[in-house]
Amino acid sequence: MATQNIYDDPEFFENYSRLPRSRDGLSAAPEWPSLRALVPDLSGRRVVDLGCGYGWFCRWAREHSAERVLGLDVSERMLARAAEMTSDPGIVYRQADLERLDLGSETFDFAYSSPALHYIEDLPGLLAEVHRALVPGSTFVFSVEHPIVTAPIPAGWSLGSDGRKAWPVNSYQKEGPRRTNWLAEGVVKQHRTLGTTLNLLIRVGFTIIHVEEWAPTDDQIAAHPEWAEERERPMFLLIAAER
Amino acid sequence: MATQNIYDDPEFFENYSRLPRSRDGLSAAPEWPSLRALVPDLSGRRVVDLGCGYGWFCRWAREHSAERVLGLDVSERMLARAAEMTSDPGIVYRQADLERLDLGSETFDFAYSSPALHYIEDLPGLLAEVHRALVPGSTFVFSVEHPIVTAPIPAGWSLGSDGRKAWPVNSYQKEGPRRTNWLAEGVVKQHRTLGTTLNLLIRVGFTIIHVEEWAPTDDQIAAHPEWAEERERPMFLLIAAER
Repeated sequence: MATQNIYDDPEFFENYSRLPRSRDGLSAAPEWPSLRALVPDLSGRRVVDLGCGYGWFCRWAREHSAERVLGLDVSERMLARAAEMTSDPGIVYRQADLERLDLGSETFDFAYSSPALHYIEDLPGLLAEVHRALVPGSTFVFSVEHPIVTAPIPAGWSLGSDGRKAWPVNSYQKEGPRRTNWLAEGVVKQHRTLGTTLNLLIRVGFTIIHVEEWAPTDDQIAAHPEWAEERERPMFLLIAAER
Repeated sequence: MATQNIYDDPEFFENYSRLPRSRDGLSAAPEWPSLRALVPDLSGRRVVDLGCGYGWFCRWAREHSAERVLGLDVSERMLARAAEMTSDPGIVYRQADLERLDLGSETFDFAYSSPALHYIEDLPGLLAEVHRALVPGSTFVFSVEHPIVTAPIPAGWSLGSDGRKAWPVNSYQKEGPRRTNWLAEGVVKQHRTLGTTLNLLIRVGFTIIHVEEWAPTDDQIAAHPEWAEERERPMFLLIAAER
């Protein structure tokens, strides 16, 4: 089966490019402060970013003294945009299918992905490859959509009889594809339970060092009152794992 | 604050004693086969069961060659019932407040708890004590109600417009007490995110080795069609951690 590359679909790309996190970068992603807290000191490290999009994290890593950064993405349009935004020779952007990676053995000191892995079908294969690519003692930090968000068919907020918003969960244990209309019609995400993701990491040899079900802080809600609903259910899952 | 001991409330105790898992033991607990799969070989091991209730697991552990078993529970009525069911000198039942345990240092080879820890307020303190009580390399296996179950205020199934059951989640990030009317009025459970429970384990020194969001198997649903709804949302959280 061909790997989904919805990102080069003109409608998706156009809508994606208008997202705050695309236009304005990391600071516009509400989960970034939490994710950043999991990123180790990158001084002199060799970094790989799986699903780098416009390359915001790649550039951030270089600004934080990473020795070199490899940004991988399936989307040629995204990579073209990323390349336009830097002339740094320490960053290499490369078109790659994350379902069929070859990163080499112990070639990186830090791996990052945010948020991309909920599009991957062969997550066991990808995690094994990331584990192989990292040197012992190094870490892999990533975010994905939380399984509470990906599970329901159909997905959407409900209003309780008390007028309170809730996120009805069903199909949690039914892992596999979810067809959504996020930014374009028919985008396919992969739903996995939280247990499955953690156990896959453990099975390929990672040690779980932090698991965060992201929620906005009080300050964030003061600045963006529309984020308050993200305290009702976890929106993103942030994981740090050690090789 | 006094530790909750709802178990000795006559109404609760009466209703609890009628639950299949109280009356018929482990085989009547739908999550037991999954939990059992996480229990290591107990031959010659010193075992502690935190919240042992009627002592079903304590007796099972002895039948599976545990050297000795300490069953702890806050409820004197439960312990009295447990004591009636065995004359095995290898099992000791003791009344204990799980919020204020002293288990000693490296005195056990396996710790177990099912399902009890969602009643504990000072989970960090309890986990640190369990870690201290276990010898290096040994494991702690426990089940709790899944945070998807404990979070919502109020909690209950909903029916979607398509007639499908869903479990509306709200208040997920609001950790703390949840007053419920399970078996008796005003039972207080503690809601914690899954991330919090895992990070507490990691912080006191445990390594996460398995995380399971329990769901009934096809065979279980064939035998108990009423369990099918437990595939819509995870009911229990089962964790195995290594000291």
